[in-house]
Amino acid sequence: MGYQHWKYETLNELCNDAFVKFGFTAEEAKIITDVLLMSDLYGIESHGMQRMYRYFKGIKSGKIHVDRKPEIVFETPVSAVVDGNGGMGQVISHFAMTKAIEKAKTAGIGIVTTRNSNHYGIAGYYAKLACNEGLIGISCTNTEAIMVPTFGKKAMLGTNPIAVAMPAEPYDFFFDAATTVVTRGKLEVYNKMGKPLPEGWALDKDGKPSTDAADVLGNINAHAGGGIMPLGGSTEKLGSHKGYGNAMICEIFSAILSLGTTSNATGGANAGGICHCFVAIDPKIFGDAEAIKQHLSDYLQTLRESPKAEGQDRIYTHGEKEVLAEKRIREEGIPVNDNTMREVKELCDHLGMDFSHYFGDYLPPENPGFKQVY
Amino acid sequence: MGYQHWKYETLNELCNDAFVKFGFTAEEAKIITDVLLMSDLYGIESHGMQRMYRYFKGIKSGKIHVDRKPEIVFETPVSAVVDGNGGMGQVISHFAMTKAIEKAKTAGIGIVTTRNSNHYGIAGYYAKLACNEGLIGISCTNTEAIMVPTFGKKAMLGTNPIAVAMPAEPYDFFFDAATTVVTRGKLEVYNKMGKPLPEGWALDKDGKPSTDAADVLGNINAHAGGGIMPLGGSTEKLGSHKGYGNAMICEIFSAILSLGTTSNATGGANAGGICHCFVAIDPKIFGDAEAIKQHLSDYLQTLRESPKAEGQDRIYTHGEKEVLAEKRIREEGIPVNDNTMREVKELCDHLGMDFSHYFGDYLPPENPGFKQVY
Repeated sequence: MGYQHWKYETLNELCNDAFVKFGFTAEEAKIITDVLLMSDLYGIESHGMQRMYRYFKGIKSGKIHVDRKPEIVFETPVSAVVDGNGGMGQVISHFAMTKAIEKAKTAGIGIVTTRNSNHYGIAGYYAKLACNEGLIGISCTNTEAIMVPTFGKKAMLGTNPIAVAMPAEPYDFFFDAATTVVTRGKLEVYNKMGKPLPEGWALDKDGKPSTDAADVLGNINAHAGGGIMPLGGSTEKLGSHKGYGNAMICEIFSAILSLGTTSNATGGANAGGICHCFVAIDPKIFGDAEAIKQHLSDYLQTLRESPKAEGQDRIYTHGEKEVLAEKRIREEGIPVNDNTMREVKELCDHLGMDFSHYFGDYLPPENPGFKQVY
Repeated sequence: MGYQHWKYETLNELCNDAFVKFGFTAEEAKIITDVLLMSDLYGIESHGMQRMYRYFKGIKSGKIHVDRKPEIVFETPVSAVVDGNGGMGQVISHFAMTKAIEKAKTAGIGIVTTRNSNHYGIAGYYAKLACNEGLIGISCTNTEAIMVPTFGKKAMLGTNPIAVAMPAEPYDFFFDAATTVVTRGKLEVYNKMGKPLPEGWALDKDGKPSTDAADVLGNINAHAGGGIMPLGGSTEKLGSHKGYGNAMICEIFSAILSLGTTSNATGGANAGGICHCFVAIDPKIFGDAEAIKQHLSDYLQTLRESPKAEGQDRIYTHGEKEVLAEKRIREEGIPVNDNTMREVKELCDHLGMDFSHYFGDYLPPENPGFKQVY
């Protein structure tokens, strides 16, 4: 399968149009599109365009309710609990982080825990919203169960990413990572590429190492067992219990504090039960915000300039790769897998949108060998 | 080298006496002793008794100033910055977490960042202080540089542990883990046992994998290069950049926000420059604290009962091993390595304390092959 490059503007128009067709307001469609395309612009294919079909399926199956709006069900000057009422994850999450930012600007810090939401896209998008206001932003989420706890064979936790963003020069600090070795999206991408998974990523239904992306994804969907290993692998020797513990922190701040659904209990009757947490902190509550920003910028520069391992010519700081990727991708276009484009075509047909309006005479090739797993 | 088992009460008396002899008040000596022995009781040898000698050396070399007290240099209702003034890490940290707890009880949340401190022992001790008050406790610290960033060959970050504790039944959730694959203390323990390190833990001075504990520790002390890998190893395939990012979060909340010393710049003129962060959060700012505690307890129970991998008969939740270890160790005694006991003997001789008062006619055997590395 090959990749086609498409202009950001083209995909932006397509996504906005599609989400409006689904019934979202123009403002909501813009938020959802921004979350998806930020991921593609940052070079993170797994959480970008390639997820369109999954949202489409979520809406069609009644897991995501287009018309339901988030509401605050508990609040203090430094905190809130948001009930997403089973709406679209990105819309709920934008609402919740906006509330956290408001609180940080008045009380110095805001923590908003959120229940009954859906997949919210790239965790870092929300952390960055706070960072763009001069604040430290933190975002985490649980997901459908996909992480197998240390010594287990059944997925009981989500990929549970944690994102932290903080203003710095010349690049903001921007960290966004699943607490599993890799994300589910990475498995989807390998499946679309038709490549075996690297060793050390996934477990089959009996809890044994597997490199078969379609099989692992299928087992996860069927709740048949297996899943992705925690960061640190599947044994304590290299720290499996640490990745598992980091995922627990996500469950606590999202599902536990909101009295929402833990990853293992999502799906079925709890479809649309995903939980998140959003934190915004004003650096001014620790003194001179400009001095703090400079101190971080200096440290990041020192890290980038530190001695390289043999065969390496660059040490990255978190957020740097994303800035470099965005510059390149805005010039070259966003690469989209042909298998994803076939899904987009199906989506356009379903919504009564003219595929050729966006993509001219390009038509995605058939690929009967591809096993779609959602 | 063998291990001797000693009663908790014996080691408690020894530690209290020794720290009073160093010039600490009885109250301060109790805090320091409690931090050390909590680690031993939890079965974490690396951060317990075996660290006595390192503190002794820190005090002797003027890195740790016995008489200097922590002070608040900036404060808001939800935050504070503490300057440790180069005093003893445990005393400074107890002061700072106590302040965070006070703020959580009035404002719902307290974040206290701390600079110019020293090694503070087990991170989880401070998280547990908050947990014992019905709060969520978080503690993190930087350390002398020991983590080599992804693609680097020089240690630029600390082992940078993060600890989170939260009330639950029948065991509190208690997570305490370095963001490196393992801690420096683990290397010290392997060195004392005279055993090679497992693969995947450490790098030599050229950034190549090493299993020689004494060599790696020596290089770290001499700032000659090498160190411990981030959680996730030394390449991106298994998530090295994630462990490195988690360590960055520690640097931000400890050294950056306090305008203190980042791990790479500690030592030398910045001896005693270690930085920490302490957070306490009252679950009541999210609603019904008892319901939240029950929700967490239920989830932890579900995890423990989930299906086990082949060859495993138990899935642990974080904090469970510590509870089991404490029960066993209070009965059987705390195991202390003979090499550590020789250091304790030297300490007693230096302080004019009668070693036999605590340990009867036991005398630690000589071990000329042991290379002490501090």
